[in-house]
Amino acid sequence: MAWDTEGTKRKILNAAVVQFADLGPDGATIELVAKTAGVNKERVYKYFGDKQSLFRTVLSEELAKVAQAVAIEALTVEDIGEYAGRAYDYHREHPELNRLLSWEGLVLNGKVPDEDVRRKFYIVKTQAIQDAQEAGIVTRDFDADHLAFLILGLAGWWAALPQVARMFAGTDDAREHARRRASVVLAARRLALAP
Amino acid sequence: MAWDTEGTKRKILNAAVVQFADLGPDGATIELVAKTAGVNKERVYKYFGDKQSLFRTVLSEELAKVAQAVAIEALTVEDIGEYAGRAYDYHREHPELNRLLSWEGLVLNGKVPDEDVRRKFYIVKTQAIQDAQEAGIVTRDFDADHLAFLILGLAGWWAALPQVARMFAGTDDAREHARRRASVVLAARRLALAP
Repeated sequence: MAWDTEGTKRKILNAAVVQFADLGPDGATIELVAKTAGVNKERVYKYFGDKQSLFRTVLSEELAKVAQAVAIEALTVEDIGEYAGRAYDYHREHPELNRLLSWEGLVLNGKVPDEDVRRKFYIVKTQAIQDAQEAGIVTRDFDADHLAFLILGLAGWWAALPQVARMFAGTDDAREHARRRASVVLAARRLALAP
Repeated sequence: MAWDTEGTKRKILNAAVVQFADLGPDGATIELVAKTAGVNKERVYKYFGDKQSLFRTVLSEELAKVAQAVAIEALTVEDIGEYAGRAYDYHREHPELNRLLSWEGLVLNGKVPDEDVRRKFYIVKTQAIQDAQEAGIVTRDFDADHLAFLILGLAGWWAALPQVARMFAGTDDAREHARRRASVVLAARRLALAP
């Protein structure tokens, strides 16, 4: 039987997302990832390098996923409120994304080794806001980079500090979820739409 | 010479804030806190109990500090934009606050042992928004708890994911700081003020 390299890589990455999101880049170990994936440690090193490099790969993958799942459309055709609502939904369904980003900020002291690549991911969002500003749909009162960042904040803040969200607004059950989503959509519109 | 209990407690708490903000409640150790404070371990246990209890005390203290430093005034007299601006300033000057809250969310899985006490801290903010809604100053389009939470988000999001803020908006030097503050103030007004 041929060795299923892609399948093994996928298993390792899936295990790594769970472990890194749970324990962070310091707490998680290659050993634990290997064990969870059911492969030996050497294979993880062979495919993904050391722990830092594996963390980087995991974060890049998760960012690629969210970029695809919550693509920012031309805001001339998509309502920015709905965009923020979709981003909020994604965070709720994938709390691991915000956890990975929080760990990155806390543990790596903000050092992002592939910062040039990462920045491109955010430039796309800033550009979409800028295009909508030029089309007169989105307010010019903000610089486009800040507005893009703040819109993501409206959607992501709940997942960034889930315990604070709960203390403010109660348990995140289906009803509260719908209420939060409605607030995010409305907030993005109030923040961004040109009068 | 009399033993300076209060001075020793203060030294321990100061050391604990630094260590917990840096390493989180899992990474930091009572031993390290004691060493940094220049006291022996037994004294830390005697004054503050175990590590979890010390973390709780540190977080409560830091929240009491921010509540005093950035008190929400009656929004009938204070502009909500300026309130958000002051909260943003505080986060920039005290990045340890957001780090402690992020660690709490990541490591303690959202378990907040003194949740009833903590919730009171947030109720004050929600109440201020509600009063301003009743006075017709702040929009009634949002529930007061959500609006209060989102206003804090506009101010705190930069400190929550500092590396993402940098990739969006560049290095946080004095000039960028002023630009960010202006965006926060404006965003809070757009979000909250009644038409």
